[in-house]
Parts: sequence; C-alpha cells; structure tokens
Amino acid sequence: MTGVPEAEPVTLDLLKKKMAEFAKERDWDQFHSPRNLLLALVGEVGELSEIFQWKGEVPKGLPDWKDEEKVHLGEELSDVLLYLVRLSDICGIDLGKAALRKVELNAIKYPLTLCNGTANQQNHTTTSPTTTTNNGSESG
Amino acid sequence: MTGVPEAEPVTLDLLKKKMAEFAKERDWDQFHSPRNLLLALVGEVGELSEIFQWKGEVPKGLPDWKDEEKVHLGEELSDVLLYLVRLSDICGIDLGKAALRKVELNAIKYPLTLCNGTANQQNHTTTSPTTTTNNGSESG
Amino acid sequence: MTGVPEAEPVTLDLLKKKMAEFAKERDWDQFHSPRNLLLALVGEVGELSEIFQWKGEVPKGLPDWKDEEKVHLGEELSDVLLYLVRLSDICGIDLGKAALRKVELNAIKYPLTLCNGTANQQNHTTTSPTTTTNNGSESG
Amino acid sequence: MTGVPEAEPVTLDLLKKKMAEFAKERDWDQFHSPRNLLLALVGEVGELSEIFQWKGEVPKGLPDWKDEEKVHLGEELSDVLLYLVRLSDICGIDLGKAALRKVELNAIKYPLTLCNGTANQQNHTTTSPTTTTNNGSESG
Repeated sequence: MTGVPEAEPVTLDLLKKKMAEFAKERDWDQFHSPRNLLLALVGEVGELSEIFQWKGEVPKGLPDWKDEEKVHLGEELSDVLLYLVRLSDICGIDLGKAALRKVELNAIKYPLTLCNGTANQQNHTTTSPTTTTNNGSESG
Repeated sequence: MTGVPEAEPVTLDLLKKKMAEFAKERDWDQFHSPRNLLLALVGEVGELSEIFQWKGEVPKGLPDWKDEEKVHLGEELSDVLLYLVRLSDICGIDLGKAALRKVELNAIKYPLTLCNGTANQQNHTTTSPTTTTNNGSESG
Repeated sequence: MTGVPEAEPVTLDLLKKKMAEFAKERDWDQFHSPRNLLLALVGEVGELSEIFQWKGEVPKGLPDWKDEEKVHLGEELSDVLLYLVRLSDICGIDLGKAALRKVELNAIKYPLTLCNGTANQQNHTTTSPTTTTNNGSESG
Repeated sequence: MTGVPEAEPVTLDLLKKKMAEFAKERDWDQFHSPRNLLLALVGEVGELSEIFQWKGEVPKGLPDWKDEEKVHLGEELSDVLLYLVRLSDICGIDLGKAALRKVELNAIKYPLTLCNGTANQQNHTTTSPTTTTNNGSESG
C-alpha cells in the first residue's frame, strides 16, 4: 500500500501457525473446541454486520468512510478470518486446499457460457429454498 | 497431507485474484456490492452452522465423522472464506495485512503473563456486554 | 389481511407450547439442547439472509416481490422466531416478559429528547467497537 | 413465574406496535429499511452467540448460570426478537400468522409416525447440502 518493498504474501498456513502458537502459549487450547470456535466466529460476523447495519447501501471501495472506520472494518474482517482458520485447523481441514478445490467446483457449476450477466445470477438467488445450496456455491 | 510433494502454499492474495477473475468472467461484479457480499457471507455461516447444529459437542479432529461429511465441511468453510476474501477486496481492505496486524494487537491485549490458563479466558467471556469487544480480540 | 374475521392474536406463549408439544411428540427433546438450538437459529438466519443477499437495497413493504417470494420470506422469518422461542424456553427464559422489559430499558437509554433524528442514531452505530452494546439496545 | 397474578400474555402484535411507536417517536423510521434491520438482527445473533461461545455444552435450564448472566441472556434473546418483529413489520409480513402456518407445515413434513426418535432427526441433519431446506423446517 506504500512505496516500501512489498511484504511477503500472507498464507493461510502462516495464520494457522500463528493462531495455534497463540492459543498454546496462553493455555487456551482447552477452549478451542469446534463448536466453541464456531460460535465465536458467529459472534465476529455479528460485529462485522454491526459496522454496516445502519448505512444503507455503500459503494465499492467505501469512498466516504473515515480511516478509523476502515481500520475497524479490517479488524472485524480479520477476527472472522482468524476464527475461521482456527476452526478449520481444529477440525483437521486444510482450508487453503479446500478453498482452491471449491473455486474449481464453482467453475464447473457456473460455466462461462451459461452464467454471464444478470439474469442467471438472479436465477439461482431469488427463487425457492431449493436453491440454497446453489447460492452457497456462487462464492468462487 | 500425504507423502506427495507439498502443494504451494495458498495465499490470501491468490484467492482474491481467483475470486476477482471468476466474477469478472461471469459479469457478476455488478452483484458484488459490500452489503450483498456480507449477506452472502452470513448465508454461508448459516450453512456452516447447520453442519454442527444437532451434533452436541464434537471432539477436535472430528474422529467420528464420515469422509463425505468432512468434505462437505471443507466446502462450507471455503464458502465463508471466499466471500470474506471477496468482501475485503471490494471494500479495499488488505485482508492478509489486517490479519497479521490483528494478531499483533491481540498479543498486546492478552500478554502471556496475564492470560494463561482457564480463569482469564473465562473472565473476558462470561461476563457483561461490555466485554463484547474483548471477546472479539481473542481470536489471535 | 382480508375482510374475514380477525384471527386471535398470536402470543409467544402459544408458540412456546406448540414447539414443546411438537418436539415431545417426535421424541426430539433429546436434540434440543441450548447450543444445538442456537446453531439451528444461526442456520435459519443464514437462510433469511440468502433471500436478501443479491437484491441490493429493497424498499419497505417489498412492493416488487412476487407473492411466492413473500411467502418464502414469511417462512424463514418464522423459522428464526420458532427456534428463538424454543431456545428461550429451553434456557428457562420468559421471552415475552424479557422483551417487554427490554423495550422499557431502551426507552430509558434512548430518551425522546436526545435521540430524535439522524445524527444521534448515527452516533451510536458507526463508531468504534465500544458501541457494540449500544447498538444492541436500539432494538426496542 | 411467581404467585402474583399472571401478566397478560405478550402477543407479537403488541411488540410490533411498541417497536413502531418507538421508532416513530425518535424519527428512526428512516433507518429501518429491510436490509438495515436484517443486519442489525445478525448483529444481535452475534451477541447472543458470544454468551454461549466459550461454555462448551450447557444443560437445559442453565442451572449453573448466575442471575445476572440469565438477565443478560434474556436481553440478547429479546434484541433478536425485537428486530425480527420489526423486520417482519417493515416487510409487510404478519409474523404471528406466518409462524402458525409454519408449525402446521412442519407437522405435515414430519408426521408423527415417521419422525419419532433419534435416527430420523439425524437423517435430515447430518447429511448433504440438499437437506438444508429440511433442516429449516424442523423448527416447528
């Protein structure tokens, strides 16, 4: 973000190690059961939502936000990420590998020729409960 | 995870690029406003929760889960991650940088000598609403 | 909603009884632990969010929604409500009583002379994590 | 809950009126768009989750919780309810009517002879993403 030399890229594995070390040093492993971490994640998603809750629609890039608001947003996004990384680790899931695989599955599910433009996105989103799973897969 | 050569580490930047490309190719940028993505993230957190909802407490490593359940779990964890990465990108937040910074902030907030063991974790978790922020910071 | 005679008002107590009976008849009490129900609630909030996720801002009254979309929305709102009622019951909380009390607390917290208009609402919403609790209290 | 005369039953309609009046008096209607309220609801669900996040499984009735913890829990459950009631109102959904209808739909979906006992509940919960919708319907 500045003219200084680029920081090294942040891997999911690095974050996983940092989280594991952090918990171990504080003797917090005992609290980090899967469902405890999941609920902590939900708590962080709640805090993330609170940032956006009274704002109405906001444009990409958040041009009108103060610096401190953006810093706060970065912190809440990070909290969600860190618990997600930790939850994956505790469940024995390789999150990076799973994410790459999911992107590939999404590419198969939404091939280029079928998914272009508005109408198709609308199709798998505004409809019945049976499209719930489809919605999830749009993430890639 | 096996004896085969390690895959290259997955960076947040790689996922960001894949998501941006995926959306662009399908003309989905128009749907990827901050609050749309946030609600999509909440939807995925809901699907993640559904996996755990009737199970009672589950042990670390999920030893009794079937392979297909773990694959499904990996997909839902990935969906949350991918929307989180995309949301950060659309908001102009460098998620990897923010996450590393948050880990450092957490280390300051919960110094080793004060946070060891059960009691302290309990302190900032079971108490009043004023500890909400503290809870969030435990993630690192 | 029509010219027909009004249905009797729906009380939280009625819903609580219906849920308890429903679970008992199906031998589902064994699954209805507090955290199981909480995660089920989160799952339903996810499904509710999915309905709104790609729509951008939508006006009050949802004038452009199809009837079937509104019916679906009513079902998801109901699922959240029913799990909330059940969770409260299982935790031994009188939800109706608690809700009335919360409205009163909110009235004290946000007195009429101080809270009118835009600026004040913004004040306790767009700021730092320390306002998290305040945000919660705006609900009444 | 005591020997004193019963309070009158709390109806969803009463809460709806109280919320509408509260917002109107404070000139907050301008903030109460459907998606603003939905995100506020998600924020409250996060606060509710935080109460349970480090506790591991907790027994029904919360026998070991302090009074102040239960009061806090009642407040967070109420916040979720109040935003849910308000969101329904703003969307033009009759929540009480919808909830009663949903209970009836659930009774049809999970008839007594098929749904008794452990196995069946497990069936529609631990399986693939296609059961997402079924899970939702178990609420009644």
